[in-house]
Amino acid sequence: MSDRDSGRGDAHLHRLVLFSDAVFAIAITLLAIEIHPPEHWHGAADLFGQMGPKLLSYAVSFAVIGVCWFSHRRVFSRLVRADGGLDFTNFLVLGLIGLLPLGTELLWEQRGGQALPIYVGQVALIGVAMGAVWGYAAFIGKLTEPMPAAEAWFIWLRVTLLPGLMCGLTMFSIVHPWGWALMALLVFGLSWLGRRIVRAPAKAA
Amino acid sequence: MSDRDSGRGDAHLHRLVLFSDAVFAIAITLLAIEIHPPEHWHGAADLFGQMGPKLLSYAVSFAVIGVCWFSHRRVFSRLVRADGGLDFTNFLVLGLIGLLPLGTELLWEQRGGQALPIYVGQVALIGVAMGAVWGYAAFIGKLTEPMPAAEAWFIWLRVTLLPGLMCGLTMFSIVHPWGWALMALLVFGLSWLGRRIVRAPAKAA
Amino acid sequence: MSDRDSGRGDAHLHRLVLFSDAVFAIAITLLAIEIHPPEHWHGAADLFGQMGPKLLSYAVSFAVIGVCWFSHRRVFSRLVRADGGLDFTNFLVLGLIGLLPLGTELLWEQRGGQALPIYVGQVALIGVAMGAVWGYAAFIGKLTEPMPAAEAWFIWLRVTLLPGLMCGLTMFSIVHPWGWALMALLVFGLSWLGRRIVRAPAKAA
Amino acid sequence: MSDRDSGRGDAHLHRLVLFSDAVFAIAITLLAIEIHPPEHWHGAADLFGQMGPKLLSYAVSFAVIGVCWFSHRRVFSRLVRADGGLDFTNFLVLGLIGLLPLGTELLWEQRGGQALPIYVGQVALIGVAMGAVWGYAAFIGKLTEPMPAAEAWFIWLRVTLLPGLMCGLTMFSIVHPWGWALMALLVFGLSWLGRRIVRAPAKAA
Repeated sequence: MSDRDSGRGDAHLHRLVLFSDAVFAIAITLLAIEIHPPEHWHGAADLFGQMGPKLLSYAVSFAVIGVCWFSHRRVFSRLVRADGGLDFTNFLVLGLIGLLPLGTELLWEQRGGQALPIYVGQVALIGVAMGAVWGYAAFIGKLTEPMPAAEAWFIWLRVTLLPGLMCGLTMFSIVHPWGWALMALLVFGLSWLGRRIVRAPAKAA
Repeated sequence: MSDRDSGRGDAHLHRLVLFSDAVFAIAITLLAIEIHPPEHWHGAADLFGQMGPKLLSYAVSFAVIGVCWFSHRRVFSRLVRADGGLDFTNFLVLGLIGLLPLGTELLWEQRGGQALPIYVGQVALIGVAMGAVWGYAAFIGKLTEPMPAAEAWFIWLRVTLLPGLMCGLTMFSIVHPWGWALMALLVFGLSWLGRRIVRAPAKAA
Repeated sequence: MSDRDSGRGDAHLHRLVLFSDAVFAIAITLLAIEIHPPEHWHGAADLFGQMGPKLLSYAVSFAVIGVCWFSHRRVFSRLVRADGGLDFTNFLVLGLIGLLPLGTELLWEQRGGQALPIYVGQVALIGVAMGAVWGYAAFIGKLTEPMPAAEAWFIWLRVTLLPGLMCGLTMFSIVHPWGWALMALLVFGLSWLGRRIVRAPAKAA
Repeated sequence: MSDRDSGRGDAHLHRLVLFSDAVFAIAITLLAIEIHPPEHWHGAADLFGQMGPKLLSYAVSFAVIGVCWFSHRRVFSRLVRADGGLDFTNFLVLGLIGLLPLGTELLWEQRGGQALPIYVGQVALIGVAMGAVWGYAAFIGKLTEPMPAAEAWFIWLRVTLLPGLMCGLTMFSIVHPWGWALMALLVFGLSWLGRRIVRAPAKAA
């Protein structure tokens, strides 16, 4: 089938992107569905006090899905066609995204800090699955535009590690505020590294 | 990445619009998900009597999301490309839209009028976030088609203020019917102002 | 704004169709969300016996949304551009579609037949709203391809009456089986009439 | 209407695919919506121990929808236009897909094995509905690109039988591990057969 389809790889890729977008959009909107107003409240301060943990969890998970969508969009903007292997690895990502509303619920129900590492682990796993998408596309399925190996490996590293690291650092920084500096360092470092790796072949060419 | 992507800004913009549409569509459909028929009812009049507040809240929030979608569509119809900053500001809008089902529930559960200002505040915040989208796109990211500064500022003002003003005036008008006149004035005034500002440069050109 | 946008009417129309499709798709999928398996059951026969009314309501509402989507697709396939008025009338349709999961719940919870006329009324109202979409598009907004007035009026009639008539006749036919003959007559009659009206101007031309 | 629309079959087909994708995406994301964290848990091992059956059911149903989406995409990639009959048969598929969250709930609530055959039956029914889509498209509506009859029948067989067989074999293999060998045989056998049937006319041509 794959060779048959190759002439229409674009349509396949297009449909896969639309399908993924729909799953991202639904997961992000379902985050709020289990949040209900408290039974009794008096004034806005009391309301927000009572709903604080839920709204915070919502904001965190919204940001997580946002970062994942952003990463997904960037990965797919480098692809020129799709095949069954991409379908499969992409489904792993979507399956984990679909579980985020559940992870978010876990986050706001548990106060003892037990849920935190599980949540961060789930987000890190999304990164790993996204790395599998890119790894398959770049190294096995050859679905990308031509690019230097260094760039392909750099993208793989960024895609795989970023979600887990950013989420873990965010959680860490809430307790230890100097973690934010670490995060800024991470983001700018990766961005600087990315620019160097991307430019290098451009100079060589 | 942003300069790399610039040649495909359209694909990025297209995907962002589709993603936003999906979030709007899901939020608008989830509005009704917490509405259930009453346990006991006799005849249509009794049914609608009991469900009145919920159906009214549904109608109000449906109109709010409708207005926001309309505004979002108009803003994005003026853009020619997208970048990471647009992704980010747009996510703020979507995050607030995703909370509207919750705000709606708040609206129908509270009779004491405490929920009203919170709901209006949430809608006003959506306007502010939408203003951030347009402000970023027009003044920082330069993502729009070329347009006179006056027009860009007028759109920013309209986009930022309209949702909150319209929602607040609607609520106000339910108690003080002459508020509707104020609303009509607002809509027609803005429309007239918009036409003048848009025409002015056309004459000058 | 409308004249400004007119050059891009297609993009507007495209986005409106996608948005509507998403709402239809979500509403149709949410139909099943309140259906849960019974607490206790023994064997498939018992399970289906207990879940019968819910599955039947699901099937009816699925068919209703299917017919409405079909009708919506046909109406929009005749349009060449969109404007704010189309947005508005279309939102009326979507608002009623979004309430169908609620109507379906009403249908399966009430055995006394009280819910039936309310449900049929809701479906009939969707037809009326769809008629408003077509009426606006064809006679006020002039958004359609050029077509003879007879055809436009015929489409308006079909779009407005069909959902309510088909739904009412289906319910009627469950009790009085000869209602199915009436329904077949209605469908074939309208189809025959449609063909005559559409062909007439083709002959004249 | 059908002859009228024929010139725009592509737009119809496109809209039908988007609509189906949205339903698939929503159903797949709703799978997790009824999964909630347990009341009490201590440590990750306990949490996963308690949530095991639900997460396993989620994974199974996610894979089922994934396979169905894959199959749906392949079927529709062979179509060149759409008509009302395709709408209708496709709605049967979507209606069964929309019931999968319910089937999944059944799966994790029942331990006695009673739910298993019902679930497998539901998945097999999706295959049958998908076979109806392809059967209608290939043999009645003539909506496909030209292809040899042998290939059309082979696709029909694969599309009809695969979901039920794969799901049934997976369930069987959990109890009898040698079932996995049977499944591998099935997948590779069908793939080999498919290649032979597709190549044969290519050689003849």
